[in-house]
Amino acid sequence: MTDFKELVNVINEKDTSKMFENDFMQTWKKSDDEIRATLAMADALRNLRERNISTKIFDSGLGVSIFRDNSTRTRFSFASACNMLGLAIQDLDEKKSQISHGETVRETATMISFMADVIGIRDDMYIGKGAAYMEEVIESVKDSYRDGILEQRPILVDLQDDEDHPTQALADLNHIIHEVGGIENLKGKKIVMSWAYSPSYGKPLSVAQGTIGLMTRFGADVVLAHPEGYEVMPEVEELAHKYAEESGGSYARTNDMKEAFTDADVIICKSWAPFEAMEKRTQLYAEGDFDGIDKLEKELLADNGKFKDWACTEEMMNLTKDGKALYMHPLPADITGVSAEEGEVDASVFDRYRDELYRQASNKPYVIAAMIFLSKFKDPAKMLEQLEARGQERKVSEK
Amino acid sequence: MTDFKELVNVINEKDTSKMFENDFMQTWKKSDDEIRATLAMADALRNLRERNISTKIFDSGLGVSIFRDNSTRTRFSFASACNMLGLAIQDLDEKKSQISHGETVRETATMISFMADVIGIRDDMYIGKGAAYMEEVIESVKDSYRDGILEQRPILVDLQDDEDHPTQALADLNHIIHEVGGIENLKGKKIVMSWAYSPSYGKPLSVAQGTIGLMTRFGADVVLAHPEGYEVMPEVEELAHKYAEESGGSYARTNDMKEAFTDADVIICKSWAPFEAMEKRTQLYAEGDFDGIDKLEKELLADNGKFKDWACTEEMMNLTKDGKALYMHPLPADITGVSAEEGEVDASVFDRYRDELYRQASNKPYVIAAMIFLSKFKDPAKMLEQLEARGQERKVSEK
Amino acid sequence: MTDFKELVNVINEKDTSKMFENDFMQTWKKSDDEIRATLAMADALRNLRERNISTKIFDSGLGVSIFRDNSTRTRFSFASACNMLGLAIQDLDEKKSQISHGETVRETATMISFMADVIGIRDDMYIGKGAAYMEEVIESVKDSYRDGILEQRPILVDLQDDEDHPTQALADLNHIIHEVGGIENLKGKKIVMSWAYSPSYGKPLSVAQGTIGLMTRFGADVVLAHPEGYEVMPEVEELAHKYAEESGGSYARTNDMKEAFTDADVIICKSWAPFEAMEKRTQLYAEGDFDGIDKLEKELLADNGKFKDWACTEEMMNLTKDGKALYMHPLPADITGVSAEEGEVDASVFDRYRDELYRQASNKPYVIAAMIFLSKFKDPAKMLEQLEARGQERKVSEK
Repeated sequence: MTDFKELVNVINEKDTSKMFENDFMQTWKKSDDEIRATLAMADALRNLRERNISTKIFDSGLGVSIFRDNSTRTRFSFASACNMLGLAIQDLDEKKSQISHGETVRETATMISFMADVIGIRDDMYIGKGAAYMEEVIESVKDSYRDGILEQRPILVDLQDDEDHPTQALADLNHIIHEVGGIENLKGKKIVMSWAYSPSYGKPLSVAQGTIGLMTRFGADVVLAHPEGYEVMPEVEELAHKYAEESGGSYARTNDMKEAFTDADVIICKSWAPFEAMEKRTQLYAEGDFDGIDKLEKELLADNGKFKDWACTEEMMNLTKDGKALYMHPLPADITGVSAEEGEVDASVFDRYRDELYRQASNKPYVIAAMIFLSKFKDPAKMLEQLEARGQERKVSEK
Repeated sequence: MTDFKELVNVINEKDTSKMFENDFMQTWKKSDDEIRATLAMADALRNLRERNISTKIFDSGLGVSIFRDNSTRTRFSFASACNMLGLAIQDLDEKKSQISHGETVRETATMISFMADVIGIRDDMYIGKGAAYMEEVIESVKDSYRDGILEQRPILVDLQDDEDHPTQALADLNHIIHEVGGIENLKGKKIVMSWAYSPSYGKPLSVAQGTIGLMTRFGADVVLAHPEGYEVMPEVEELAHKYAEESGGSYARTNDMKEAFTDADVIICKSWAPFEAMEKRTQLYAEGDFDGIDKLEKELLADNGKFKDWACTEEMMNLTKDGKALYMHPLPADITGVSAEEGEVDASVFDRYRDELYRQASNKPYVIAAMIFLSKFKDPAKMLEQLEARGQERKVSEK
Repeated sequence: MTDFKELVNVINEKDTSKMFENDFMQTWKKSDDEIRATLAMADALRNLRERNISTKIFDSGLGVSIFRDNSTRTRFSFASACNMLGLAIQDLDEKKSQISHGETVRETATMISFMADVIGIRDDMYIGKGAAYMEEVIESVKDSYRDGILEQRPILVDLQDDEDHPTQALADLNHIIHEVGGIENLKGKKIVMSWAYSPSYGKPLSVAQGTIGLMTRFGADVVLAHPEGYEVMPEVEELAHKYAEESGGSYARTNDMKEAFTDADVIICKSWAPFEAMEKRTQLYAEGDFDGIDKLEKELLADNGKFKDWACTEEMMNLTKDGKALYMHPLPADITGVSAEEGEVDASVFDRYRDELYRQASNKPYVIAAMIFLSKFKDPAKMLEQLEARGQERKVSEK
């Protein structure tokens, strides 16, 4: 769906009233209407940019980023989203800052927000910590806004927490929708989120969880596949079951990778650490038990090593629908023989889907911009039309 | 005073002619008119922003920052100020730069200034160094501007030096003015700048000095309180005496914290290192005597430990006017039981004044923007009216 | 040549058609027309800025920078160039990024380019690596643009590679042209690129190579002077010979510094490492032979030490045309008695030319902006006129 008017109509039909001056945390905190409006908004903003029509809604203002984990893709996506809306990026580098031991979250959150219209946070390392920290930031700026200390309400965009990776999951969902030709065509499609072997360990669960917590909502048949011991959070699986039931799709879990791949339409294949191990690691960190952490790491690596056959090989891809399932990955992937001796995916598979993988990634800046846009206007569809009518050029054209 | 026209009138009445194309170093280098114009300008810019009227005066241009000490609050304040005027931030990270040993200040200052409209510097660590470095930068860019090498005169904003912290002092003064309902109401108000115990040591003196060097200028009764041995620079005390006399207020120093707090209207309570110790440390650094520095640190910590009773407790606050003095701190504070076992302030006192503390901090971006604005126009009051008449929206509104 | 109309005419006369949507790598990949258009464009953009006319051609968009070596001058120049055209800087700090081992250049290049209009790269440390990496980035974004993954073609600006330093060479050439009063006056001028002693070693050859590869193209008599053993790449010398022949100038190499300085009009005097040693070092790095590198460094320092008499002294400057040759340096220089015990240049020589040196450096932001500008419009001369006619102010003026 690339027609601008159609996209505006979709947004117009959806109830986005609760998105106004509101944050974007996990996708499961958003209604179906809100999810669909976000996807349509992402496409509409892209459409305007493709037609060289400026989407600047701010003449000045800051987009504040806090990355508690290294990042290239998400960092550039957030920067791009802010830039296309007219916000300048100000990164809070916790290493260069004077955040004193014991300084409250409310204090830091307020101090960085005097001119912030949006705060983007990535905090995905420790179970039970990332989303909780973000919620505290949200409460803080809400309080400071209510008390008249902040002149505008900075909304928070969750750039990956310990449970969900909403900007990734939505970018991925939009990629699938574009590939299958519309959200209504998700019904009956088999989407597989499969674990894969990687020589590193301790990768966040949030991609896997984000996938099953979102893809189940629109009628698809979602399968989570992983070796025994690599379970995800039970709460998210419950959500997946509930959504599948409501949407007329299905959700299933298997420890048999082949079964999962058979007749699949979409394959997302990626390593993650077992939820229970991540919980234990969080606990050990809290206790400062670094010997325990070392021991745990060794155990996890040894466990990992037992499942080297969990890889997205040509053989496995052959099992999918007509051998042509859409292969997806949030990147960077551990590619066998390229970035790892043995990794998540065969080089030939990865290479064949390279363009699609990059197109998948290209959705993220627009998804983030959509989240911000929807939080800033009571009637976002009308504002899109207003921007089109304004017709300000992004790049000056020759007259 | 939040009425825009009134603020414009105040600025109009003041002589700001020497602020044009001029820097903002210590407050004591500015006339009363200039101080008052700066405060009114800060409020006027805030007023425009609150009414969603853009204060962008630059279509492009750079605000260059140099932080020789860690910073969150001031970094974000400077970034916000530049952003609201239309400048992009370019930080000179001395670690990533190719500044060769012996490269002159004039060279570096010129190289970073080809498109800079303002340079913000924080350099507060060594007595006799910070302000001197800034003055050298000023002379450098003045020379390069005069010689036609720079097309515009980048003005320097002192984001904290070894003597003064002008953006903090002005933000604090504006906070007090807002709380007492006008600058004319400062007369007769007892403002206390008190030392407090902190487990860290070697904190800059510039906040204490900035406070007594500014608050004495408008008729208030200013008291500096500290244990014996924690003297500030005698030159600044002389200024405080002179200003108090001129303004019809008073300046006094005491080693008795209770005496200071009694009947106070405003309490600013914060740790700092003794001036003489800081001078000695600067000397030891210059000599490369790291054993000497270690020894000095131990002595200072031991000295500090003798004055743990210097804290802003509930008991102390009870001594103030009606027990309700305005408590202030430049943040972050060492809060007893929160960010320190024993610190500068009781948690209950800090919590009670939280909103006021954040409001105090919220003045800083506007104070910095005001300093820049006043340096850029011959008739800044008229330009404010011009911006209001232009009526450009900061955030696009729904039409 | 500072007349705007004249500059527009020059650009108009030149064939810049191949610069559209194209990159700026080594100067020797550009035609004479393209070089001359770049220089005229740099002056035209400066002219507009001096008249307070905005050169913003982008309403939003990113300028991505990748610095694989420390940088102040070039970093600020690139930031300034992007800013004056309306692009926000987004730096790819490879230390903070999640670029996995083995991640392809195409992947990284695409991931950072979704909203990038220009990518600036400095990669000058290893022979055979820097330019090759940039070419790979170019191929990557071209592929991704062609495949519809990128909506715009981000062009690459070479901010220094292992062979050439095009932005420096062009800034330097424009400086000479301004000093001699026009490009046609280069004919018959003796321009000397001389090696000089520096206590550090291993400085890139790209400045020396960039100089002889560019200055020979417009009729000047170019001399490369260095001690035996400090040869540059033979390929670049071949280019210098060819260009000199074509342009009616000359190119010569000598190991006699005095001969080179005699009657010179322009002196560029700077240390560099021998090409063969740099090749060896690159090889040793590739082999991980760190003992070998240590040994090589010691040898190079010892070799260097034999040529301390290669310095731009007053005595040497006296040999030049009327003792008044234009002294130039890309900065920072190793100044004898200032930034080095014994260095590249006498302090008195450096001081006498300080203003000229800074003016030389001031060309760089405009040269970079010119490169970007020329890549973005089919008829760049017309666009210049359009910008002048638009008359948007860079800084709001009092009305």
